[in-house]
Amino acid sequence: MFMRVDRLITELPPPQTQDPNAAAALQELLGGKYGEMSTLGNYMFQSFNFRSKDKLRPFYSLVASITAEELAHVELVSNGVAMLNSGPDKKNGDKGNGGDISKTPFEAMTDIRLAAAFLANGGGATPVNSNGVSWNTDFITTTGNVIFDLLHNFHLECGARLHKMRVYETLSDPTGREVCGYLLVRGSVHAHSYALAIEKLTGVDIKKMLPTPNIPLGNIPECQKYLDEGSHRRLYTWSNTDYQEISGIWGNGEVALPDDPPGELEVVEGMPEGGKMQQLVGVPSAFTPDYAPEEMFEIASKLYKASR
Amino acid sequence: MFMRVDRLITELPPPQTQDPNAAAALQELLGGKYGEMSTLGNYMFQSFNFRSKDKLRPFYSLVASITAEELAHVELVSNGVAMLNSGPDKKNGDKGNGGDISKTPFEAMTDIRLAAAFLANGGGATPVNSNGVSWNTDFITTTGNVIFDLLHNFHLECGARLHKMRVYETLSDPTGREVCGYLLVRGSVHAHSYALAIEKLTGVDIKKMLPTPNIPLGNIPECQKYLDEGSHRRLYTWSNTDYQEISGIWGNGEVALPDDPPGELEVVEGMPEGGKMQQLVGVPSAFTPDYAPEEMFEIASKLYKASR
Amino acid sequence: MFMRVDRLITELPPPQTQDPNAAAALQELLGGKYGEMSTLGNYMFQSFNFRSKDKLRPFYSLVASITAEELAHVELVSNGVAMLNSGPDKKNGDKGNGGDISKTPFEAMTDIRLAAAFLANGGGATPVNSNGVSWNTDFITTTGNVIFDLLHNFHLECGARLHKMRVYETLSDPTGREVCGYLLVRGSVHAHSYALAIEKLTGVDIKKMLPTPNIPLGNIPECQKYLDEGSHRRLYTWSNTDYQEISGIWGNGEVALPDDPPGELEVVEGMPEGGKMQQLVGVPSAFTPDYAPEEMFEIASKLYKASR
Amino acid sequence: MFMRVDRLITELPPPQTQDPNAAAALQELLGGKYGEMSTLGNYMFQSFNFRSKDKLRPFYSLVASITAEELAHVELVSNGVAMLNSGPDKKNGDKGNGGDISKTPFEAMTDIRLAAAFLANGGGATPVNSNGVSWNTDFITTTGNVIFDLLHNFHLECGARLHKMRVYETLSDPTGREVCGYLLVRGSVHAHSYALAIEKLTGVDIKKMLPTPNIPLGNIPECQKYLDEGSHRRLYTWSNTDYQEISGIWGNGEVALPDDPPGELEVVEGMPEGGKMQQLVGVPSAFTPDYAPEEMFEIASKLYKASR
Amino acid sequence: MFMRVDRLITELPPPQTQDPNAAAALQELLGGKYGEMSTLGNYMFQSFNFRSKDKLRPFYSLVASITAEELAHVELVSNGVAMLNSGPDKKNGDKGNGGDISKTPFEAMTDIRLAAAFLANGGGATPVNSNGVSWNTDFITTTGNVIFDLLHNFHLECGARLHKMRVYETLSDPTGREVCGYLLVRGSVHAHSYALAIEKLTGVDIKKMLPTPNIPLGNIPECQKYLDEGSHRRLYTWSNTDYQEISGIWGNGEVALPDDPPGELEVVEGMPEGGKMQQLVGVPSAFTPDYAPEEMFEIASKLYKASR
Amino acid sequence: MFMRVDRLITELPPPQTQDPNAAAALQELLGGKYGEMSTLGNYMFQSFNFRSKDKLRPFYSLVASITAEELAHVELVSNGVAMLNSGPDKKNGDKGNGGDISKTPFEAMTDIRLAAAFLANGGGATPVNSNGVSWNTDFITTTGNVIFDLLHNFHLECGARLHKMRVYETLSDPTGREVCGYLLVRGSVHAHSYALAIEKLTGVDIKKMLPTPNIPLGNIPECQKYLDEGSHRRLYTWSNTDYQEISGIWGNGEVALPDDPPGELEVVEGMPEGGKMQQLVGVPSAFTPDYAPEEMFEIASKLYKASR
Repeated sequence: MFMRVDRLITELPPPQTQDPNAAAALQELLGGKYGEMSTLGNYMFQSFNFRSKDKLRPFYSLVASITAEELAHVELVSNGVAMLNSGPDKKNGDKGNGGDISKTPFEAMTDIRLAAAFLANGGGATPVNSNGVSWNTDFITTTGNVIFDLLHNFHLECGARLHKMRVYETLSDPTGREVCGYLLVRGSVHAHSYALAIEKLTGVDIKKMLPTPNIPLGNIPECQKYLDEGSHRRLYTWSNTDYQEISGIWGNGEVALPDDPPGELEVVEGMPEGGKMQQLVGVPSAFTPDYAPEEMFEIASKLYKASR
Repeated sequence: MFMRVDRLITELPPPQTQDPNAAAALQELLGGKYGEMSTLGNYMFQSFNFRSKDKLRPFYSLVASITAEELAHVELVSNGVAMLNSGPDKKNGDKGNGGDISKTPFEAMTDIRLAAAFLANGGGATPVNSNGVSWNTDFITTTGNVIFDLLHNFHLECGARLHKMRVYETLSDPTGREVCGYLLVRGSVHAHSYALAIEKLTGVDIKKMLPTPNIPLGNIPECQKYLDEGSHRRLYTWSNTDYQEISGIWGNGEVALPDDPPGELEVVEGMPEGGKMQQLVGVPSAFTPDYAPEEMFEIASKLYKASR
Repeated sequence: MFMRVDRLITELPPPQTQDPNAAAALQELLGGKYGEMSTLGNYMFQSFNFRSKDKLRPFYSLVASITAEELAHVELVSNGVAMLNSGPDKKNGDKGNGGDISKTPFEAMTDIRLAAAFLANGGGATPVNSNGVSWNTDFITTTGNVIFDLLHNFHLECGARLHKMRVYETLSDPTGREVCGYLLVRGSVHAHSYALAIEKLTGVDIKKMLPTPNIPLGNIPECQKYLDEGSHRRLYTWSNTDYQEISGIWGNGEVALPDDPPGELEVVEGMPEGGKMQQLVGVPSAFTPDYAPEEMFEIASKLYKASR
Repeated sequence: MFMRVDRLITELPPPQTQDPNAAAALQELLGGKYGEMSTLGNYMFQSFNFRSKDKLRPFYSLVASITAEELAHVELVSNGVAMLNSGPDKKNGDKGNGGDISKTPFEAMTDIRLAAAFLANGGGATPVNSNGVSWNTDFITTTGNVIFDLLHNFHLECGARLHKMRVYETLSDPTGREVCGYLLVRGSVHAHSYALAIEKLTGVDIKKMLPTPNIPLGNIPECQKYLDEGSHRRLYTWSNTDYQEISGIWGNGEVALPDDPPGELEVVEGMPEGGKMQQLVGVPSAFTPDYAPEEMFEIASKLYKASR
Repeated sequence: MFMRVDRLITELPPPQTQDPNAAAALQELLGGKYGEMSTLGNYMFQSFNFRSKDKLRPFYSLVASITAEELAHVELVSNGVAMLNSGPDKKNGDKGNGGDISKTPFEAMTDIRLAAAFLANGGGATPVNSNGVSWNTDFITTTGNVIFDLLHNFHLECGARLHKMRVYETLSDPTGREVCGYLLVRGSVHAHSYALAIEKLTGVDIKKMLPTPNIPLGNIPECQKYLDEGSHRRLYTWSNTDYQEISGIWGNGEVALPDDPPGELEVVEGMPEGGKMQQLVGVPSAFTPDYAPEEMFEIASKLYKASR
Repeated sequence: MFMRVDRLITELPPPQTQDPNAAAALQELLGGKYGEMSTLGNYMFQSFNFRSKDKLRPFYSLVASITAEELAHVELVSNGVAMLNSGPDKKNGDKGNGGDISKTPFEAMTDIRLAAAFLANGGGATPVNSNGVSWNTDFITTTGNVIFDLLHNFHLECGARLHKMRVYETLSDPTGREVCGYLLVRGSVHAHSYALAIEKLTGVDIKKMLPTPNIPLGNIPECQKYLDEGSHRRLYTWSNTDYQEISGIWGNGEVALPDDPPGELEVVEGMPEGGKMQQLVGVPSAFTPDYAPEEMFEIASKLYKASR
C-alpha cells in the first residue's frame, strides 16, 4: 500500500513564461521509453511479482522502496509539464467567467507541437512521450529472474540519465531545468544502488560504468545544491515501517561515486521533506476548472469549512 | 509524494490451484479499460493537473486521496494475478536447482490464454487486459474541467463495478474471488463519493443511479465481511497529514446507499490495516528467482543481517 | 449523410449453439486488416476526401455508394459475432433477475479465446481482429490519387475474399457460414466493380485476375441462393437520389464474371430488402440488459406507447 | 442498413486560406477520444449489440438513430479537415499537368504539425487525433448493460462538448468554426437525449448537469442560426420507416434546456436538409486526382453520359 | 541468410544544412505504411513463409531477392534521415569534450517536429512515420496465396512511388532528394517486376498501369543519371549463388516501360557497387558517441591495430 | 547493403506434427520484446546511426556484423513458426485442387491460440509476440551513445537468453527445440561479445554476469553439437570484405566462458555453412499457394527453364 503526502519531492521554481514546446520536450521524461512512467512501471510490477521475498528481502526492499520514489518523480515531471504548458500562476487568474470565447483566444495552440495537450488536457500532463505517443506495457520488463531484472534496471537508469541530460540541454526555463537537475541526482542514486545490488550478487563491479554518459553531475548547476546537501549519497526507505534492509546494499562502507562529492552512502528512513506545489491557477476561458468557477469556489469553501 | 507500506490492502487466501486462465481473466481488472490501472491513471494525472487546488481543496483532496487507494488496488489485483498464475506457494519451492529443463517441463504453458505471462513474465502481472492488450493513455481523461472529470470518474467506477462483477462470475478459486469481493466494496465507495461530489456541485442526485448494475453487494458472499465491518461507509485519507477536507463531501450526515447496511459515512485518517502478502515462492526451473538460487539466498541473508 | 433502416442486409439463421471461439474467428472479418471495418474505413474516408468530385462523378459515386454497403457489412458481421457469442435467443431469456451470481456461472468464459468479448462486451462485437487486436488507421489508404486508390481497393477486396474463405472453412454453425456466404458474393461484386473502374481508366483488363483465390463462388453452398437471384450482377446505389452514375462503370454491356452465372451487370437504385435481426435476448446474470430488467422493460413499454 | 445522400449535414463556408495546423486541431474532433469517430463507434456497436431490442425499443431506437447522425458528423469534420488542409477551391485548379515537381513545390509541408496528412493523404482526413495518433477500439464502450452504456454516452457527449469548445477557440477560419458551431448544437441535443433516457430509467434528473462546461450555446455566434431555427429542440429519426419510438423519450412535454431558446422538444422523421459539399478541387502537382488528370476527366465525362 | 557489405546502395551527397523537419518528412519513406520498412517486412516474411518453393522457384526467388534490396533501401533512407538530422559532418566534430551543457545548447530541438528524434535517438533514424508513429505488423501482408501476395506487392510499390514523389516535392536539400531520386528508379523496377510476375501467372497486362502516378521518371532530375546507366532495366540477384531464376520473369525479351529509356530488361548477378557512407561525426555535447570520446577513440584505435 | 544466400543458418528437423500453439510460443522469440526482431532492429538501426564510424571501427563493425546474423535468426525462428503451424511437409501435399471447402476443413483453427496466424497468414510467421501483439519501435534503443547502446545490447541478449530458455521448456517438438538450442548458443556469443566490448571501453568485467540465467548451455541437449563444433567461440564477420576489426574485441587471447567448452575465441570471415530449408508444401484447401495450383506450377516450370 501507499500513503500520500501533499508535497512535491522538491520545490519547483515557477515558470517564467508559457512554453508548451518545452513542456512537450519534458514529456519525454514522463512517458518516453526511458521516462519516469517506465521506471515506476518496471519497479512497481517487479515488486508486485517478486519471488521468494523473505529470502531475498534486501533486494525486494530495494526495488519496492525505489518504486515509491518513482511515483514522486512521475509527480514531479507532471507538475513541470503542467507548469510549462500553463505559464506562471496569475493572481486571481481563475476569477470571473471565461469571457468572450468567440475571439479565437487560443489560436496559438494550433502551432504547439502536441496540440492535444491543450485541446484534450487543458495543459495537463499525460503519459505520452515527446512525440505524443503513449507509454505502454512494452516498456515493462518483469521476468522474475532477479539478476536479469536488476541488470535491466541498471540499464534503464543509465538510459534515463542520458535522456534527462538531453532534455535538460533543450530547456531554458528554470522550471524544467530544476526538474532535470533534481532527477539527474536521484536517478544517479538509483543507478548506483542497482549497481551495488548486482555487485553483491555477481561480484561484477558494474558501478565503474557510472556515470553514463561520462559527464559528472557537478557540470550541471541545477544539481549543485542537491550534491551539497548529500542527496547523491542518500537512499530513502519511503516507509516508516519497512524496507530498512536496503542498508545491506546501500551502506556497509560503500561510498559516493568518484566524480561526486565524497562520503559514505546512507539510508534515510522515510522520505525527503519536499516542497510546495504550484496552484496551477485555472483558466476559465479554457474551462479549467470551469468557464464560470465562482459558484464552484463558493461551494468548495463551504465544504472545506464543514470539514474542519 | 507517496510512502509505501509492505502490506496488501486486504489479505488474500492462497490459491487452491494454478490457473493461468483465471489469472488472465483477472487481468481485465488490472489493465482493461475499466481496470485498476485506469482508475489509478485517471485520478493520479487529474490530481497532478488539478487547477486552483486551494480554492477547490475538498474536490482536489478527494481525487488525490483516492489515487493512493487505487495504487493499493493495482497491487491487490497484481498479487491475485501472480498467485493464480503460480498456484499455491510450495514449502521450499525455491530450493535446489531447476532440475533437468530438457524434459519440456512447461508444455502446458503453450495452451494458456496469455502465454507471454509465463514466457516473458514468469507468471507475473503486467498492465494488459484479459486479451493481452496493453493499457495506455487512451484510457486517461484529464481535462482540467472539474465537473466533467468528476462525471467521467463516476462513469468509470460504474463501469469498473460491472467488469468486476463479470470477472467474479468466471472465477471459482478463492484468491480471485476475494480480489473481486473486496474491490466491489471499495469501488462502490469511490462511485458513491464521486456521486456526492457531483451532487454538491450541481445539485443532481446522481447517486440514485447506484448500484449499477442493479445488484446489491449483499448478493456477493465475498463482500459480506467488508460490509459487516462498515467498509462501504468508510473513506480513507491515505495520509497522516493531508486530505481531511474530503469529509466535507463524504460526511456531514450523508449515509450509506439504500441497498447496503445502513449508517453514516465516515472519513478515516490514514489507511486500512491490510494483510500479509504471499511469498510467491520462486520456481527455479522457470528461472525465478534464478535457476540455482541458493547462493543468492545466502548473499541476501548476509546483507539482511548487515542491515540490522 | 446516411439514413438508417432497421433491417439486416440479409437474414441470418439463428446459431445452433453458443460458440465464442467461432465468434472470435468471425472477428477477423470485422476488425482484421482485410475485414469490413477496413473496407468501410477506406471507402468512407476516400469518399470524404475525394477530389474534383464533379469531374469524376462516376468514380466518386462508386466509392461513395459502396461505402454505404460496407456499413451494412459491418452490421452483418457484428450481428454474427454477437449471435455466436450468445447462442440462440432463449424465449424469455431476459426474464427474472440474474439469479445467484456467486456460483461462478461463467467459468467457461475464462477459456474462450477472447475473454474480453465476454468480460467487457457481454458477448458483443467490437472492431478487433481474431487475435483481439484493434482495428486502426493503419488499415486506411486514402491518397487522393484516384488510380492508386482504386488499385488499393481492388487489392483490398481480393484480400477480403481470401480471408472470408478461410474464416468460412473454420465455421460449422449456420450463422457464421451465412455471414461468409453472403459477403463472398457481395465482396466479389465490389472487386469486380473496382476492376471495371480501373479498366475504364487504364485499359488494363484487371478483372481477369478474379476470382482470387481461384475458386468459384459456386463451390460455396451458402453462396448459391444469392447467385441464383443474381446478386453477383447487381450493384446498389444505396440512395434514393444519388450515385446513379455508377451505371457508367457497372453496366453498358458488361457481364458477370466467367465463373459465375451469366448475365448483364445491373445497377439497382436503393438497397436490398434485407431481413430481420435477432433479438439478442438479454442475459440478466451477465447484466444485459440488466441484472433485474423487469422495471426497465415496463418503463420502455410505457414510453413506447407514448410514442405512438 | 444505411442509405446515403450526397449532401453534408450542414453547408460549410469555404476556407479563407490553407491552414494545415488548423486542420490538425480539427482532427481532435474526428479521431480523438472525444471525437466523432468515438461517438459513431460507440453508438454503432452498442446498437449492433443491443439486447432485448423489442422490449427496450425506445432506448434501442435512440442509440440506433443517433448512430446515423454521427456518420454525418464524421463526414462533416472530415470535410472541414480536408478543406482546411487544401485551402479554397481554385477554379480549374485541377487543370493541366502537375508542372515541374523538381522545384520543391511543397517545402512548406515539412513544417506542418501532421506532415503525413500531406505526404500520405494529400490533404485528406483520417481517423487520428490532433497529435496524429490513431482512433481505435480503446475508445469504444459496449457492455450490453443499458443503464451503464447510457451513462457512458452521456459522459461522452459532455466530453465531446468540452473538446469542441476548445477546438473552436483555436480556429479563426470560418470553415472550422462552422463545423464546431454546428456540432456544439447537435451534440447538445444528444447529451440532452441521453440525459432524458437516464432520467426515464432511474429517475435521476441528470440533465441538470447540462451544459458542461457551463457556458451557454448562445455565447457562440456560429451556434446562433441553428438555435434560431430550433435545431436544439429537434431529434431526427434518420429513417423513413423506423425509430419513431424515440419520441417516447424526446417529447412528451419535455422542453429545451434552460439556457437555450425555449420550446418543446420534437422528433423529426428523416434527416436535415443539409447542404452542398465543396469540390475539393484536385492539385495535380500533389497527384490528386492525378498528375495529368485530363484524360481521366474525359473518360469520366463519357461514363457519366453513358449513365444517363 | 544475409551477408553484409559496408557500403550504401548509392552514395549520398552531404547535407547542406541541418534540417530535422526534412528528416522527419523522410521518415515517411522509412516507417510509413508505404515506406521501406513495409516493403522489406512484406517481402521478407513472404519469402520466409513461401509455400512450395521448388515448384515456384522463379516467383520465390523474385520475392526473396528483392527483400535483400529493400534492406539496402532501409539503410539508405536511414542514412538520409540521420544526415539531415545532423547536418554536414564537421571536421573533428567529435573532438574535445561536450563543453558546457548548461547553456541550453539544443533549445532549437524543442521546436522540431519529432523532438524524440533528438532526445531519444541523438538524430538517428527509427522505424516511425513522418508523424512519429511506429511501423508495425499491421503493414505486413503475407497470406501464402501467391497471386494475392504479388498483387499486394504491386499495389505496395505503386503506393511507395506516390509517397516518394510527395516527399521529394518537400525537400530542397540534396541529401534527401538523392534518396528519393534513387528510390524512385529502383521502386519502379520492383513495381515492374511484380507486374511481370502477375502477367505470367494471370495473363493480365497490369504493367500498363505504370507509372502510377502518371509522371515519368525523366521529370525528376535526380533520376536522370540512374536512367542513363540503365538502372531501370536491371534487377539484381543480390546473391552470388542463388535466385538467378528471376530471369524467367525479368528478361526473355521484356523491355523497359514506355516512358523510360528503351532497352531490354536484364538480371545482374550480385548487387550494385554502391557508395561510401558518411561518417556521421559525433556531437559530444549530445553525448554521441560520448561526452568525452577521446579515450574511447584511443581504445578503438588500439583494438583496430590488434585486429590487423 | 546485404547479400542473400538461400540457406537457413542451421538445418531444422521437420516437425513431427502440426502444433499451432507451439508455433505461437515460438512467436515470442520472433516478435516479443526480447525476440529476434528486437535484436535485429536494435543493431540494424544502431549501425545505421553509428557516429564517428572510422574512429570507432571495431565497435561499429561489431554491431554491424551481428546485425547480419540477426537477420538469419529472424529467418530461423520464422521458419520454425511456419513449420510448426503447418506440420510435416506432405509429399505432393500441394497437388490437386483444394477439394470441397464447404465441409469446415479447418474447424480446429478456431481453438488455436493465435487464430489470425491461420486466417490471415495461412500458417506463416509475422512479427508479433506469443500473445499476438505487434513488434514495434518501442523495442528499439538507438541513442548514439556507444557505451549506453552496448550496455543495452548486453542486457537485451541476457533477456533474450531467458526467454529462449522458457520457450524451450514449453516445446516437445524437435523443430522448435532445435531453434531454441541453436539460438541459445549464438545468443550467448553475442552477449559475450558485447560484454567484451564494454570491458574494453570501461574496464568492467561484465562478462562475469554470464550466463544469465545461471544455467550452462551444456544442460541443453540441443546445444551440445554446436558446443562440440566450437560455435560458442566463433564470431562471424558476415562479410567477404568488411568487419574484420571485430577481432580486436573477440580474440586477442580472450577465451570461452567458464561454463562452456574451453578454447580461444576466434573470428571467422563470412558466415556459417547453414542448412537446407523445408519446402513448406502448400495446402490448396487453405489457398496456399493457391486453390488449384497446377497451372501455376506449370508456368513456374517454364519460366525456370527459360532462366537457365
